[in-house]
Amino acid sequence: MMRERLQKQMAFLIEAGKIKNIFRMNYISDGSRLENDAEHSWHLCLLAIILSEHAKYKELDILKVLKMLLIHDIVEIDAGDAYVYDASAKAAQYAKEVKAAERLFNILPIDQAREYRDLWDEFEERKTPEAQFAAALDRLHPMLMNFQSQGKSWLENNITAEQVQEKNQHMQDGSPVLWEYATDEIIAKARELGFLG
Amino acid sequence: MMRERLQKQMAFLIEAGKIKNIFRMNYISDGSRLENDAEHSWHLCLLAIILSEHAKYKELDILKVLKMLLIHDIVEIDAGDAYVYDASAKAAQYAKEVKAAERLFNILPIDQAREYRDLWDEFEERKTPEAQFAAALDRLHPMLMNFQSQGKSWLENNITAEQVQEKNQHMQDGSPVLWEYATDEIIAKARELGFLG
Repeated sequence: MMRERLQKQMAFLIEAGKIKNIFRMNYISDGSRLENDAEHSWHLCLLAIILSEHAKYKELDILKVLKMLLIHDIVEIDAGDAYVYDASAKAAQYAKEVKAAERLFNILPIDQAREYRDLWDEFEERKTPEAQFAAALDRLHPMLMNFQSQGKSWLENNITAEQVQEKNQHMQDGSPVLWEYATDEIIAKARELGFLG
Repeated sequence: MMRERLQKQMAFLIEAGKIKNIFRMNYISDGSRLENDAEHSWHLCLLAIILSEHAKYKELDILKVLKMLLIHDIVEIDAGDAYVYDASAKAAQYAKEVKAAERLFNILPIDQAREYRDLWDEFEERKTPEAQFAAALDRLHPMLMNFQSQGKSWLENNITAEQVQEKNQHMQDGSPVLWEYATDEIIAKARELGFLG
């Protein structure tokens, strides 16, 4: 029984590892190559523990935030990465991701399949303090990477400061402090430096 | 004051991101390329939450385990990755890593510099239940990747089953269940399949 349970857990862990081959639209800090979902997920978790004091709601379950962030992108194994600034790709994406969630979380033993599917749904819905903080970090992180790589991906895709402002403003729901930082220290400076149109 | 604190946190987060360019000795599952420390750290955290029930001590602070795993490899930004099967490289490594820890954690505000340096020391010492479980996962993960990639890295470096058995047996301190799994399902099968000498 235990061995069978462990085999399911290992099968899930190996399958989830495929996000190492799912590349995003942003570069890593030095601009040398695109970032993959595993690197992004690690970095997000590090942001979560270091920046947790800046969450809007102080009574945050940070372990829940980390669990969400660790699994939030595995649906892209089947659904691929949809660029946040590409409205048409975004619209079709959710249905693909739900189908992927159905397949992937069910590799786990049934109790864990339910727990992690619920966490993924909670993250997507952005209604709880944990989901809102996790989502704020998920927007902050690519902005940081884009700024560090001198706007390489923004410039390649003709992204404007207005688009960045509009697409990321829900950061306020999770962290007004981090949204203010993003506005002043990333978007405004990126525009000044010519990293954004 | 808040902005200054946030600037230090951001500087640390950006510096830590350099582990995306620190490559390890093991390949990712499909054998297509070596794995970097960011991918390894993400995968370890996923192992931690999915496999926590198999820890030796049941009263584990899993958030502490995750914090350790998220930062355990950042010292390699300065010290590089030392191959676990290379005894001479391993001996010189610790002094380099301590120096790196000194530099890197001190980028953080002082309270966090202390907290994360203490977590890194605790991980290295492998005395607490959290550190022992984290260390067990840190040994299990490359074994899994090496098995999945058909022993590619083991074969390239002429590693034997006896070496794998010997170098990884401290997994027992963190999780007898996972060590038994590793012995039966990874080491023994890898030898049968010719993935290990």
